[in-house]
Order: sequence, then structure tokens, then C-alpha cells
Amino acid sequence: MAIKFAKRMEDLKASEIRELLKLTEKPEVISFAGGLPAPELFPVEEMKEISKIVLDESGTQALQYSTTEGFPPLREQIAKRMNSKNKTNVTKDDILITNGSQQGLDFAGKAFLDEGDIVLCESPSYIGAINAFKAYRPKFIEVPTDKNGMIMEELEKILETTENIKMIYVIPDFQNPTGRTWPLERRKKFMEIINKYEIPVIEDNPYGELRFEGESLPSLKSMDKKGLVIFLGTFSKIFCPGYRIGWTCASQKILSKFIFIKQGADLQASTISQREVSKFIDLYDLDKHVEKLKEVYERRRDLMLETMKTEFPEGIEYTHPEGGLFTWVELPSHLDSRVIMQDCLKNDVAYVPGGSFFPNGGKENCFRLNYSNMPDNRIIEGIKRLGEVLKQHMIVKENI
Amino acid sequence: MAIKFAKRMEDLKASEIRELLKLTEKPEVISFAGGLPAPELFPVEEMKEISKIVLDESGTQALQYSTTEGFPPLREQIAKRMNSKNKTNVTKDDILITNGSQQGLDFAGKAFLDEGDIVLCESPSYIGAINAFKAYRPKFIEVPTDKNGMIMEELEKILETTENIKMIYVIPDFQNPTGRTWPLERRKKFMEIINKYEIPVIEDNPYGELRFEGESLPSLKSMDKKGLVIFLGTFSKIFCPGYRIGWTCASQKILSKFIFIKQGADLQASTISQREVSKFIDLYDLDKHVEKLKEVYERRRDLMLETMKTEFPEGIEYTHPEGGLFTWVELPSHLDSRVIMQDCLKNDVAYVPGGSFFPNGGKENCFRLNYSNMPDNRIIEGIKRLGEVLKQHMIVKENI
Repeated sequence: MAIKFAKRMEDLKASEIRELLKLTEKPEVISFAGGLPAPELFPVEEMKEISKIVLDESGTQALQYSTTEGFPPLREQIAKRMNSKNKTNVTKDDILITNGSQQGLDFAGKAFLDEGDIVLCESPSYIGAINAFKAYRPKFIEVPTDKNGMIMEELEKILETTENIKMIYVIPDFQNPTGRTWPLERRKKFMEIINKYEIPVIEDNPYGELRFEGESLPSLKSMDKKGLVIFLGTFSKIFCPGYRIGWTCASQKILSKFIFIKQGADLQASTISQREVSKFIDLYDLDKHVEKLKEVYERRRDLMLETMKTEFPEGIEYTHPEGGLFTWVELPSHLDSRVIMQDCLKNDVAYVPGGSFFPNGGKENCFRLNYSNMPDNRIIEGIKRLGEVLKQHMIVKENI
Repeated sequence: MAIKFAKRMEDLKASEIRELLKLTEKPEVISFAGGLPAPELFPVEEMKEISKIVLDESGTQALQYSTTEGFPPLREQIAKRMNSKNKTNVTKDDILITNGSQQGLDFAGKAFLDEGDIVLCESPSYIGAINAFKAYRPKFIEVPTDKNGMIMEELEKILETTENIKMIYVIPDFQNPTGRTWPLERRKKFMEIINKYEIPVIEDNPYGELRFEGESLPSLKSMDKKGLVIFLGTFSKIFCPGYRIGWTCASQKILSKFIFIKQGADLQASTISQREVSKFIDLYDLDKHVEKLKEVYERRRDLMLETMKTEFPEGIEYTHPEGGLFTWVELPSHLDSRVIMQDCLKNDVAYVPGGSFFPNGGKENCFRLNYSNMPDNRIIEGIKRLGEVLKQHMIVKENI
């Protein structure tokens, strides 16, 4: 006999991309590959004070085990915040604290997916969600998108003709990887369709509060009449990712399952991290902090897009995100962003090649750029380098 | 259509026990039900200082995303500690940081178990492991045990006659729930058998360092010649559980799979928690801290066992753990600990009924007692109350 892994492990192999991204970690590389917030904006001084206060006020409780559902005052703060920002009408009992919103993705897979079940998602979609779901061996159907997100006619066509769809995964606000946002009408139409077919929806909303322009739109969860929408939120993008504090907001029927899953998966989120995040919200103005982030990210988005405008060769398209962290670049269809990435790395600049964002593969003439993590001057320099490499590849092709 | 959960959710229902345990949370209840460390021994003052130092020295890194494998200096400290305490020969590259060791249990299930695969475990075994594995729908075979843990002849008989055994889950040191420890000879025999059959072993070791008497024994991992043993460790019992920092130590072939799983499950453990635990080990003497814990827990174990000796009626057996957190009580076979628990709750004392520790069920005349969490006087008072209830049940039966 020899060690035999579960079948699912065949689908979770070391990806080409993962290996590639390791090369972007060298300090000389200007990396637009990650999805990291700007570290210089983290409230380091405030958290020094907060951790002292939490340990002073409740040291033994903060270092002990606590409930699987999470710290009740934090769950209350989150419910209140969602009701204000996402136009929902939820209470702390609808909230489970998770290790970042990524854990909610894993739990959704665990709760809903048997082998061979079908997941619908936007095409392209978030690579981390695709990988989390893959552990449960579903099939993916990618719903076509346009500049306003998922196309509702296409969604309906698929729902009408497909058996065994167990859940639909969407990012309506500043999508990862495209930066696109669904307009209000499309959200309404989506919920109309969902209520008809009664399929659970994972609404992943890590960036919703980071809107630089345009009007804030109600979440799908706020239009959820039948308890079908599972809203995933996180403090990683509006506060700091280092604490790994996110949440799942869902109807009791679904949340109770997620709580059992959490119990088996790791008992509970960090007690002290939950109390520290909660105390920060108590003592500081998180809205004001988010305002500061938005100011910086908007400037960086503008810098990136402006520099792309002057430095990229003709024939390349990219999105204009109204918020969030990413823009999405589409090259002429004959170009392969994995090949170009090799040359980028030689020039110490990096992005994530687009192919991995399509769960069923096949589209390689695109890539994702992050603008939140690099300082202004590195954004300009990085886009210039990238422009040079792209020019070479466009020219090479023309000469063949 | 209506919401359809995955088949695994049928096995993860609200347990009777879970509901029962909620009743033990009232402050007036003397609860021996949990597995909580003594909060008054947590290094609260030290952690106040540590969190300031970590944020001073590396605030922006501590609050940012970091690698899935974990903070390299902490992984090094763990490897060094394991080599000293558990007699292994491992390096930081063999270590993955997890959210407590519970997460390693979930990952083991995910890595090895397809539906219907077989898991071997001690009978009884840790309820949290059973529940973590259940999410992957295996069958359990309970290997009979005696006062020295798993019986090797029984193990061999099962291995000889059973197909499709994917992993073996064991707690050789101060087992949960029985408090029993495998002697050296049995460990050697176990590894001999394992090397022959080449089946992955989960060695769960949350309590190993908490030995009050007898000689420390080498871990199974230290005798692992073929990379079959997956060692799960945690800081929850020797430091504090509130940070949720544990680890998995395994051969590259297995650890690489766990790393992919971690990436999909929640990206990484808390950056700041990892740095704080690491800094504590740097600046303080964790061994000295563990000595203090052992002193208190040994006294509480003695108090509990001595009080049981005088207060429990005749005909009840219980283990004498050489370390760890639990003792295991066996009642005459006609008694049901779930029924007795109802009367215990009326008298504000609680334990965990034993049935849930048997994955295939069927044995109800036993229960688990924890002695680490309650202060000395509450241990004496609680055992007295428990003794009263037990006497009533023994007498009732005799009168029938």
C-alpha cells in the first residue's frame, strides 16, 4: 500500500501561476499581481493602544476560547454597519465571524456541493473562490458578462436548461478580477430570477465600501426576500488583513449549517483579534479611515489608468473601475499573457495572467492589475515597463 | 426548487450534546464539560508588552497578508521545540501554521477522505476530530483500547482484513477523552505495523507537554521513517487558545497538499497572532510558563481524583491521567450518563456524556471530566455534587 489522497487533491495541484507569483516577491519587482491593501495606511499606532486596552479590560477572556459564532458585540457592529452600508436589515444573529471572507467561500462549497454539482459564476471570476469550491469537485458554468457584469439573459438561459445547479457565486461590486460593478437594474433583475429558481447565491463583497465615484448601490442581500443570499464581508480591505477577520451573513437555515462547519473546521475565529477589531470600531471612526483609503486608492487608480493611456500601445482595452482594487486588461486575441509575463519578470514588473480566472480555462489574452498596493511613483514606473514589454509583443506579432 | 445542501450536511446536525452543553454556560454551573485551560494563568501582562513590541518593530508587516505556510521564524521555533520535546528531527519546512490544531484535523479529512473511505481511531476518541472527519463522509472503525491505549493486536487484525483504510487518527499522550497514554513499547509496535501497511497517521498532540508524572515518551513522529505521520500541535494548551495558533508537521509529500488546502480554506493564519506568539517565545521562557501550568493542573487533577475517591459511590471506575486535562469515568453498564446529566444540571454541575466520543455510538455509561479550568474549591464542590447525583442513580437502580 502507499499513501492515497482523496480524489479532490487531483484538482488542487501546484499551479503554474502560483510558481510564477513566487518570482514577484523579490523587492525589486514592481508587482501589480497581489490584492494587497496599502500597508502605510494601516492604523498601527491605534492598534498599539487598542491591544493594550483589550488586554487591560478583558485579558483573560481575550486569550481564552470563545463561541463558534463569534464575539457578540462585533457581530452587532457588523450587522449595524451592513444595514447602513449595504442597505440590509439584519441582526447579530445573522452573522458568523470567519477567518477572512475566504473561509466563507470554503464553507459555501462544503455546505452545498457534492461531487458533480454545478456552480454558476461570472466569467471571469475570483481565482480564490474557484479554488475553494474545487475542493468539493463541482462543475463550473461560467455566465457570460459584459461591462455591467453578469448578463441576465444568459443567466436565465442557463437556469432554464440546467439541472443540479447548487449555488451561484457573484461579486457585484468592483469585481475581482475585472473591477466591474452591476448597475441597480441588473441587481433587481438578478434577484427576480433567483427568487423564481430559489438557488443560493454567494454575494462576495470585500470591496463594496471602496467606491471612488458614482452612487453606492444596494447589495443583493438587501433585496433578499427568501433567505437565499449569503453575504460575505471582511475587514481585510477596509481595515487590515493581518487579523483575518471576516464574516458570513445569511438566513438562519443556512447560517446554522455554516456554524456547524466552523466548529469542525477550526472551532472559532481568534478571540483577541475579534475583540481588537471590535474595540477599534468602538473607539475610532472606521468610516473616516475608509475615506482615507479611498482617497489614496482613487489617486492610484487614476495614475495607473492615465499612465496606461500614454504608455500602452494601441489595441489594448482595460476597465475603468469605480472602486475596489483592480483593473482588467484585454490584449488582442492572438497574445498570451503567460508568455508576456515571462518578459515582464525580466523587467521586474508583474501582473496575474488572466487564464486562471476562468474556471473552465481557455482565455489567455488578458490579465489583472492591482493599484492599491504600490506607491505612486512605482505605479508610474511599473506601467511604463509593462508598456514597453507590451509594445515589443505587439510589434513582434505585426512583423511575423 | 428549494435550497439543497450537500449530502455531508445530513451528518452534521445539531447534536443533543451541543444543546446540553449550552446549559453549562451559566456562571452558577460548575462545569467539568469543556477542555479549557485555566485563564488565570494566561500571560496577560506579558502579551501587552509583546503586542506593543511587535507593532513597534513591524507594524505594517504584522497587519498585512503574509504567506500561507506561516511566519518563518515561528515555524523555526516550532521545529526546534518539537525536536527537543517530541524527539523529532524536523525543520521549519516541515511546518504549516494552522488555526489551532483543529484545522489540521479538517485538512486531514480533506486531504485523504473520499466518501465511504475508512478512518481508524481509538475507541473512544476526540469528538472534535470525529466531527471534522464526518464532513468528508468516511466510515469509522473504532480500534479497541485498554488502559495503555490502542491495542496493537486489534489494530493489526483490522488492517489485515479491511480494504480502503485511508488514515489512522490517534492521541498517544493523555488522550481526549480518556487521559490515557501509550507506553513506549506500544508506540514502537504501532510504528512497525504502520510502516508495514504504509497508512497515514494523524498524531494529535495538544497535551504532550503537560506531563505531571512519569517519563516523557517519544512521539510517533520521532519514529516515522517513511513520512507517514502527520503531527498536530498547538499553543492553545501550553500558552493561550485565544490566538488560534497551531501547526501541522508532516513530510513534504503530505504537507504540500495541506498548504494548497490552507490556501483555499482561508489563505493563511493571522499574521499578527503568529508574530506575537513568536515574540513571546523569543522574549519569555515558554518552558517556565508550562512548568507553572503543570503545577496547577497536577494539583487540580489530584484534588479531583481524591475527592472522587471519597465522594463517588462504589462501582465507578475512572482513569488516573499522568498529564493533560481529562479523566474518564465508567459507570456500571446499566447507567446512562445522558440521563444522569439532566439531574447534574439541576444541581449545577456538568460533564460531557461519553456516547459522542464513540463515532459509531452505543456506549452511554461513561463521561469525561475536565480538571484544568475550575479553581480548586469549585472542583471539590462540583465533585461532591456529582457524587450525590451518582449515588441517587446507583441506589435507584438497586431498589428496582
